[in-house]
Amino acid sequence: MFIRQNQEAVNIQSMVYGNLGETSGTGVAFTRDAATGENYFYGEFLMNAQGEDVVAGTRTPLPISQLAEKDKRSYNGLLSIRQILEQHYRDMLDVEFTIQDGKLYMLQCRVGKRTAFASMKIAVDMVKEGLISPKEALMRVEPDQLNQLLRPIFDLNEKKKALDKKQFLAKGLNAGPGAACGKVVFNAEDAIEVAKKGEPVILVRIETSPEDIGGMNAAEGILTARGGMTSHAALVARQMGKVCVAGCGSLNIDYKARTISVEGKDLVVKEGDFISIDGSTGEVINGKIPTKPSEVIQVLLQKTLDEKDAPTYQIYKQIMKWADQFRRLNVRTNADQPDQSQNAVAFGAEGIGLCRTEHMFFGEGKIGPMREMILSDSVDERKKALAKILPFQRADFEGIFLAMDGRPVTIRTIDPPLHEFLPQDEAGQKEIAKQLNISLAKIKERIAALHEFNPMLGFRGCRLGIFYPEITEMQSRAIFEATVNVIKKGTKVLPEIMIPLVGHVKELKSQEEIVRKVASEVMEETGVKFDYLVGTMIEIPRGAITADQIAEVAEFFSFGTNDLTQTTLGVSRDDAGRFLPLYVQKEIYARDPFEAIDREGVGYLMKLAVEKGRETRKKIKLGICGEHGGEPSSVEFCHQLGLNYVSCSPFRVPIARLAAARAAITEELLTKQDKKGKKEKKEKKGKKDKKDKKKKK
Amino acid sequence: MFIRQNQEAVNIQSMVYGNLGETSGTGVAFTRDAATGENYFYGEFLMNAQGEDVVAGTRTPLPISQLAEKDKRSYNGLLSIRQILEQHYRDMLDVEFTIQDGKLYMLQCRVGKRTAFASMKIAVDMVKEGLISPKEALMRVEPDQLNQLLRPIFDLNEKKKALDKKQFLAKGLNAGPGAACGKVVFNAEDAIEVAKKGEPVILVRIETSPEDIGGMNAAEGILTARGGMTSHAALVARQMGKVCVAGCGSLNIDYKARTISVEGKDLVVKEGDFISIDGSTGEVINGKIPTKPSEVIQVLLQKTLDEKDAPTYQIYKQIMKWADQFRRLNVRTNADQPDQSQNAVAFGAEGIGLCRTEHMFFGEGKIGPMREMILSDSVDERKKALAKILPFQRADFEGIFLAMDGRPVTIRTIDPPLHEFLPQDEAGQKEIAKQLNISLAKIKERIAALHEFNPMLGFRGCRLGIFYPEITEMQSRAIFEATVNVIKKGTKVLPEIMIPLVGHVKELKSQEEIVRKVASEVMEETGVKFDYLVGTMIEIPRGAITADQIAEVAEFFSFGTNDLTQTTLGVSRDDAGRFLPLYVQKEIYARDPFEAIDREGVGYLMKLAVEKGRETRKKIKLGICGEHGGEPSSVEFCHQLGLNYVSCSPFRVPIARLAAARAAITEELLTKQDKKGKKEKKEKKGKKDKKDKKKKK
Repeated sequence: MFIRQNQEAVNIQSMVYGNLGETSGTGVAFTRDAATGENYFYGEFLMNAQGEDVVAGTRTPLPISQLAEKDKRSYNGLLSIRQILEQHYRDMLDVEFTIQDGKLYMLQCRVGKRTAFASMKIAVDMVKEGLISPKEALMRVEPDQLNQLLRPIFDLNEKKKALDKKQFLAKGLNAGPGAACGKVVFNAEDAIEVAKKGEPVILVRIETSPEDIGGMNAAEGILTARGGMTSHAALVARQMGKVCVAGCGSLNIDYKARTISVEGKDLVVKEGDFISIDGSTGEVINGKIPTKPSEVIQVLLQKTLDEKDAPTYQIYKQIMKWADQFRRLNVRTNADQPDQSQNAVAFGAEGIGLCRTEHMFFGEGKIGPMREMILSDSVDERKKALAKILPFQRADFEGIFLAMDGRPVTIRTIDPPLHEFLPQDEAGQKEIAKQLNISLAKIKERIAALHEFNPMLGFRGCRLGIFYPEITEMQSRAIFEATVNVIKKGTKVLPEIMIPLVGHVKELKSQEEIVRKVASEVMEETGVKFDYLVGTMIEIPRGAITADQIAEVAEFFSFGTNDLTQTTLGVSRDDAGRFLPLYVQKEIYARDPFEAIDREGVGYLMKLAVEKGRETRKKIKLGICGEHGGEPSSVEFCHQLGLNYVSCSPFRVPIARLAAARAAITEELLTKQDKKGKKEKKEKKGKKDKKDKKKKK
Repeated sequence: MFIRQNQEAVNIQSMVYGNLGETSGTGVAFTRDAATGENYFYGEFLMNAQGEDVVAGTRTPLPISQLAEKDKRSYNGLLSIRQILEQHYRDMLDVEFTIQDGKLYMLQCRVGKRTAFASMKIAVDMVKEGLISPKEALMRVEPDQLNQLLRPIFDLNEKKKALDKKQFLAKGLNAGPGAACGKVVFNAEDAIEVAKKGEPVILVRIETSPEDIGGMNAAEGILTARGGMTSHAALVARQMGKVCVAGCGSLNIDYKARTISVEGKDLVVKEGDFISIDGSTGEVINGKIPTKPSEVIQVLLQKTLDEKDAPTYQIYKQIMKWADQFRRLNVRTNADQPDQSQNAVAFGAEGIGLCRTEHMFFGEGKIGPMREMILSDSVDERKKALAKILPFQRADFEGIFLAMDGRPVTIRTIDPPLHEFLPQDEAGQKEIAKQLNISLAKIKERIAALHEFNPMLGFRGCRLGIFYPEITEMQSRAIFEATVNVIKKGTKVLPEIMIPLVGHVKELKSQEEIVRKVASEVMEETGVKFDYLVGTMIEIPRGAITADQIAEVAEFFSFGTNDLTQTTLGVSRDDAGRFLPLYVQKEIYARDPFEAIDREGVGYLMKLAVEKGRETRKKIKLGICGEHGGEPSSVEFCHQLGLNYVSCSPFRVPIARLAAARAAITEELLTKQDKKGKKEKKEKKGKKDKKDKKKKK
């Protein structure tokens, strides 16, 4: 008997005859459990039936184990066929069989569909069973499937119940995977207050801004009506490991009435009501749905579970161990708080690739002086205000350096436009006016002056540091004083200062001079020597185009592929929701370019920058810190470019590790094929040459 | 006697001795009038004095002509020296002399500084005199100097008087050269109304938008508080040939109170008060200053002056004639109205390189249906609304085609974000609500939905046509029906349909299919065949990077260097005022990249697109339609790239013609030098080889 699949054939030597007397039957089965991956034969059969009857579901089939009672020989036959098939195909299979007049026929056999979890378990088990190699196992696990092992999920039965009861509200973007359930609040302060009482909250905003950080941190999940996969809400949520549904356009969020209404539905959700959001699917559901925590999180982060009691964790650990053996790319993380940094290290991060410092201007003791600085009219006033922020930022950096324990930390100097630090509502403006003893009119005037038509292309990035060198000076001082303090505590520190939005080498040069001057000053003042690097983001096309010149100054490049995608494609990520989905649907772009790197466009500039950068500085350190750094196909591209590392949000670190390993394995396979191809070509040519020679003779 | 200049020496053979008796004198003179260029010896001298006395102005010197009376021989000596010097240096010179004890000494001789006007007159005269060649003449006229021949200017004495009386108000950007004076109005409607009464008006706006077109057209000049050299106000003003001072940040424009106040000044300018603006210097001056019209405009555009009574026009004509002989680049214009097109042709435009169509959605009968379309919920409703606009746009195109009389016309399909077509003020919104019988709430909701964080990178360009194919369809139909109608009138038409903001060939393909489908339909319906091209703007980096793919579909590329600069440098032109001046001051960029093409960054991508485009389609037509197309150094760069044409606003067409000629002449000179250099190298090598041979022997 032959079973054909993918033009391959397996000869099942031992054809087995069953004996069901007069009756016949038919069934379908998986060689292992497709839901859990457990290693047992799992399926159903019907007596006196055709295959369609099993699929149609009109009669209730029996579990396959009962076949053993009805026809032991056929059952045993199936079991041995199962083994032969798995040995041959070295995978879990989905088979169809029929028994006619006591004769067992195998009708079909395909690689079986399985849950993400099952695919990981089966891959790991099959290595143990000697069926496949670790490399093959890794190639069978899609990196994104790891999310299943990391994030809290809804109890699926409970979710189904809720959906059956029509509690579904809307669907947004699955911006931060996992499941969360909590009370609705509409602003950051409320989120913090309610969370303090121990109650879970979902922070619901039209869009979020850096002002909301505290509230986002306090919430179980974040829900926004606007913004895409790389909007502020989505970025920060992923970095924090928060569940997030973003850009849920059909929600009508009314801050004044403190309600959410839904387009086309009568229902109104009020402040304090429970909602559930599924950040893996984008679903927003009314009411409470219980969630289950992840074993990996319990073992690694919460440390509430022992490794040996955590079979799921063990699968995760095995996959990561193999991944680390094969990958060539380093994996860093985007983190700007000590707890995030610790989480990332637990997930295997080998450094910080992007420490955003803008959040270090918010919060108690910092935002006040920051606003004072922005509203100042003179360098002296600005320096005074910045001096107040210095000790706070120094402490922030110390915390991060300690958490990273000697691993390199790339710190980006201030990047966002200044208006993000001023309140946009009149109440907030009045409060500052009072605090700083400035007229409300002046504050309004300054805010109006800071208003920009296209803030993404406006007064931000290194432009701030060039206009206000005192900011770069303060930040450099905070970084280097923290470096010295942590070195004195006996911990190694490797700060890498990164200047954003550089398009011209002179921009970088002006900032580099400040950084190096402050570094020398701090070394002299403290008598402690330390190593550090100065580099830049490559995030606007001109930066990539002139990378050879920029590399004269930059000791490293880090690709900021979010902004590089925005500028190269001329697409604002915050506004793309209007047309990009249609573009993907019409296959203009195969995938959302903010999700997976657009290799033809953005990738071209990355390649150019890599080549030009290395032309000038052979050993220049190259990395990526855009959100793409945690997306498997983009990680593969970075591997192909020969970058040194990718950096992504803490919860994506394991995904990046696996993706990096798969990229290396794929490359190896392709090289082998290539060699084989060449060899065959050569042999063919050799034969031809011989022939030709003979002919000539 | 030797006079040295630039390491060259001229031997003045005939040394002349004057005889002033006991006394001596000293003087400075120009060999021609430095202000008017007239060919007569022009200068001053003082008796018994040193050179410094003449310069210091403590004593009143005498005109040089009086020297003839005092010492005929010295004067004649000077006259012949003047001739010798001009023959030798072949330029107008500034000389210093002294007469001591009857002996005439020439102290110094330099190329003389002169006004723009004088430089043109002198150049033209010297060709006639056989001193220099036409090519040399062109190399001595800076293209921007032509502005002086085209634009109305203030009577300089009257302007000085006004400044002496402290009427100076503020200084903005010299966005549209020339001088204008009129009554202050604060909105487009008032501008139209006051202008109808025959009174000159200056339209004063914080910033302008397409809604203001009618008012800008009616005004003598436009003054804005915000926006740069390529802001809407500046672009449109230049295209219309209006005087414009833009981005005058120290003005406080209060629409409600209808006043302008100035930072740091007590004065308040009210609606109806007269102000004068100098678009060549950026000055804003209180009160009336008389202006003088330009001869060239009177001859070419107003036709109120005969060519032979216009010596200035003759100079212009001569320069343009020579320029056209030498230039290789074609020069087109950016125009979207018949009168603009006619002006441009009078200035020598050889076609339209950019006909923006967005203004064709404004005005009587058009803006209503356009708003109806934007607010529609279904394709059918949108098609109905668009059908109402069709006859208007068809008539617009007919007017332009007739004005261009067979010259090619590149028409860009709709480009700006839709929110620009909806009123931002509540009064306007209420009016539409009434007109269209839609609730105000719905209109506000739609406007809120259309709000964008970065409209420059948002839902605009071809994205509109992809989302709403019915717009492209309507526009194509209007263009082709107009084509047929004009052909039937016996005039040739060459429409080139240009799709904006293309970053992916599939975007262009989707639009091209619509355009070609409509063209076939119109040909079939009317039985008239016509030629047309479909092409694209290259204005985002991805367009340049994938130009080889795009050229599979595009029959021409037109570089939109405004947007290409914004995206390549990551700089919003509307917001750049905050930091770009500092950048230029700090020499990060040598020149404002929105003024002169940034060759290293933007130029790299242009070069790439030219190469890739020609790789796919050898004869692809290449042009530029960004504002850079009228800026001399950018025109030179376009010449170097080998583009087919540049396109600029009508009043810059002569400048572009001259710049194109100078680029060709410069190239010729460099090639000659290069050849000479190679020849010399070869000869040197030859000699060396001979020597070596000898040595060997």
